[in-house]
Amino acid sequence: MGTAARGCGPLIPSLSESSRPLRQQIFERVRAAGLMPRVLVAKELGVSPASVTTLTSELIEMGLLIEVSARRDTADTGRGRPAVALGVKADARLVAGIKLSDREHTAVIVDFAGNLVADEAIPRNPGSMELSDLVDATEALIDRICARAGIPVEQLSAIGLGVPGFVDSHSGYVHWSPVLSSRYVPLAAAATERLKVPVHIDNDANLVTLAEQWFGAGRGLSNFAVVTIEHGVGMGFVLNHRIYRGAHGMGMELGHTKVKLDGALCRCGQRGCLEAYVADYALVREATTALNLTNRETQSVNILLESLFDHAKAGNSAARSIFHRAGRYLALGLANVVNLFDPELIILSGERMRYDYLYANETLAEIKEMALNTRRPVPKIEIHAWGDLLWAHGAAALALSEVTERVLGATREMAAQ
Amino acid sequence: MGTAARGCGPLIPSLSESSRPLRQQIFERVRAAGLMPRVLVAKELGVSPASVTTLTSELIEMGLLIEVSARRDTADTGRGRPAVALGVKADARLVAGIKLSDREHTAVIVDFAGNLVADEAIPRNPGSMELSDLVDATEALIDRICARAGIPVEQLSAIGLGVPGFVDSHSGYVHWSPVLSSRYVPLAAAATERLKVPVHIDNDANLVTLAEQWFGAGRGLSNFAVVTIEHGVGMGFVLNHRIYRGAHGMGMELGHTKVKLDGALCRCGQRGCLEAYVADYALVREATTALNLTNRETQSVNILLESLFDHAKAGNSAARSIFHRAGRYLALGLANVVNLFDPELIILSGERMRYDYLYANETLAEIKEMALNTRRPVPKIEIHAWGDLLWAHGAAALALSEVTERVLGATREMAAQ
Repeated sequence: MGTAARGCGPLIPSLSESSRPLRQQIFERVRAAGLMPRVLVAKELGVSPASVTTLTSELIEMGLLIEVSARRDTADTGRGRPAVALGVKADARLVAGIKLSDREHTAVIVDFAGNLVADEAIPRNPGSMELSDLVDATEALIDRICARAGIPVEQLSAIGLGVPGFVDSHSGYVHWSPVLSSRYVPLAAAATERLKVPVHIDNDANLVTLAEQWFGAGRGLSNFAVVTIEHGVGMGFVLNHRIYRGAHGMGMELGHTKVKLDGALCRCGQRGCLEAYVADYALVREATTALNLTNRETQSVNILLESLFDHAKAGNSAARSIFHRAGRYLALGLANVVNLFDPELIILSGERMRYDYLYANETLAEIKEMALNTRRPVPKIEIHAWGDLLWAHGAAALALSEVTERVLGATREMAAQ
Repeated sequence: MGTAARGCGPLIPSLSESSRPLRQQIFERVRAAGLMPRVLVAKELGVSPASVTTLTSELIEMGLLIEVSARRDTADTGRGRPAVALGVKADARLVAGIKLSDREHTAVIVDFAGNLVADEAIPRNPGSMELSDLVDATEALIDRICARAGIPVEQLSAIGLGVPGFVDSHSGYVHWSPVLSSRYVPLAAAATERLKVPVHIDNDANLVTLAEQWFGAGRGLSNFAVVTIEHGVGMGFVLNHRIYRGAHGMGMELGHTKVKLDGALCRCGQRGCLEAYVADYALVREATTALNLTNRETQSVNILLESLFDHAKAGNSAARSIFHRAGRYLALGLANVVNLFDPELIILSGERMRYDYLYANETLAEIKEMALNTRRPVPKIEIHAWGDLLWAHGAAALALSEVTERVLGATREMAAQ
C-alpha cells in the first residue's frame, strides 16, 4: 500500500454508507414496504417521529412521496380511525431496465414505485459483439419499448443495463463478458452518450439481488445473500438494506472461488472454480458420458440438460452421480457463504430454478455439515424461481437506485448536524 | 424468512453505518491520523470546513480532542506560518486490553490516543477452564496491570477481552473456545459483573484487524483484509473505516471455509477446512512422517515446526512438500478473499510470521493464478509480524472503539437533519 492511497478518503462515494442522508433512508424504507405509516418509519430507523415528519414533508414537496389514507381494518366495529400511510409517488419518474444476454435481450419500463409499465423481449443469435453493435442493440430495444409504453426516450430518468461477466458497476467498465468481443470496455459511458439518458451497468448476480430486494423475497430485509445458478454461478449480498459489491465493486464472485486445487477447468480459464462443478456447462460436459452420446455438438445445452435430468429421475446412476456431485459442491459453496457472510437468509434465485436435485434435502443437510458449528441454526435457504423478466427487473431496480441516489443522496452536507 | 423478521429494522445497531454521526467520524479520522488539520478532515469526509469547525469545537469542549500548534516545515526560510492540527486528548480515557490464550495471558493499558501505559504477561498451563476460573484469571490480570500503571480499576473506561474461537462480539457470548470448557458462555456479561467495568469481547482475528487499523499497517486505510495464520486461520475485514463482522457478527471464518470436499480433518470436527491445510497443527501432523519420527507426543508444536522448517531449508523433499502444499492452499484461500471481497490490501498479520515458505514468490504467483482475471492487479499483500502484545493491543483497540461509540455514537438522533 503506497502512501498515496492513505488518508485520501473513501474512493467510492456510494460505499460511504455513513453519508447516506436520513431522507434517502426514509424514502427507501417506504418504497420497500409499499405503504408505511410515519410512526413505523421512525421506529425502524430509530429516529424521532418529529424528524420523520419534517423529512417526509420535504419528500412530499419534492413530489416523491404521497400520503395515502387507509381506514384501519377493525373487524369488530368497522369504526377504525383513518390512518395515514406514506407511499412512493409512482409517476414521479420512469426508468428502463435492459438485460443483454447470449440468448435474448429483454427490457422493462417501470414507474418510481416499481410497477411494470411495459416489457419487451427480442431473441438473438448467440455470440459476442463489438461495443458499437451492442450499443445499437440497446438503442433499438429502448426505442421499441418506449414506443410500446407510448413515451419518448427522454422521459426516462435512467436506464439500467445488465450484462453477464465481470462488470465494474462504479466505473461503468466491463472487464470481460461473453456478449462482448473485447475486454475492458467502457459500456456505461458509450451507452449514455448514444442514448442521452444516464445508463448504469451491473452484472447478472447483482441485478438478481436488486430484483429480490426491490420486488422479490428480499423486500424490506436488512440483510440477505442471493446465489444464482444458471450459465454461471453468481452471488449478491445485501447488508443494512444496501447492496454490497466488495470494496471496489468487483467482489462477490462466488462462482470463481476455488473449491478444489487444480480442479475442473472453468470457462474463465482457471481451474477449480465452484462454477466449473455446478453451472450448466459443467453438467453438460459430463452429460455426454452419462448418456453415452457420440459427440453431437449440435444438441443445445437445454435439451441435453433436460435429457440428463430425465435419466437421473429414471434411475440412471451415472446421471444421478453428476447431479449428486454438483449438489455437494453447491452445498460447499453455500456453506462458505454462511461461514464468511453469516447472512439471515440465502435466496437461491434465477430465471429457471428447475433442477430440484440441486436443492434436495440431501444438499441442505450437507450445508449444515459444512457450516460453522455454533448454536445459531444455519440460515434459512429459500428457492425463488422467476420468469424471463427477472434480469430486466433487476436492471430497472438498478436504475431506480441510481435515480434515488442522484435525487436524494447527492449532498453529503445533509449528514452534518 | 418469517414475517417477524421483516420490517423490524436492523437487529445490530452497530452495523448501522448510516447512523454513525459525523462527529464520531471526525474523531476517528483524527485518531487514525495522529495529527490532522481541520481542512484535511473536511476534505476526507467531503463536508464543509464550517461543519468540521462546529463539530470539532464540540469535541474539544467534551475534552476528547485538543489543538496542537505546529510550525510548518518550510526548509527554505524557516518562516513557515504556524499551523493548527487536531489530535486526540490522550489522557481523556484509559482502557485495558487482555488476551487470554492457551499459552499465556497478556494485557496492556493504553490511553485514549492509543499510547501504551503499561503491559503485563502471565504464562499459564494449557487447557480449557470453567467460566468462573477464566473470570478469576481476568480479574487477577487486571488487578496486576492496574497496580503496575498505578491506577485503580475504576479508572478504566472499558476492557477489551480477546479469546480464540467462535465469539459473538455483539451478544458477548462465546459459542466455542479452546480456553473454555463449555459452549455458549456469556463471557462479556460475567466479566462485566465481576470487574464493574464494561467488558467487550471478540475473537483473535478481529483483534488483530483492530490492532492493524488503530496501531499498525491499516492506519487510515478505508478498506483492507487481515488474514492470520497461527494456531488457526483467521480473517478480519475493514470496510469504509469500520470492522465488518458479517451480517450478525459471526462471519469471516475464512479458516473454516471448505477448500476440499471430504478433505483433511479440522480441529473444528469438520473436513476440508482451509485451516486443516495451513495451520500449525496441520503441518505438525504431517511433520512426523517427513521427519521419520517415532510417535513422541511430548515434542511441542513449536519445536516440531522449527525442525521441519530446518529440514525443508536443508533440502528435505518431504518437508518441502508439506510447506509447498500449505503454501498452495494458502494461495487458494487468499485468492478466494480477493474474488469475494476485492480488498485494496491484504495484511498477513500475526504474532510470529516466521515461516517464509508460506509467503514465497511462488505463493504470490499462485494467488495471481487463482484470482479473478481482470485488468486490475491482484491486491497488494503485506506481511506484518508483531511482538507478543499484538493481541492485547487489539483488545485495547476494541475497548477504545466501544468507548468512542458510547461517548459519541449513542444517539441516532444526531444523524437527523
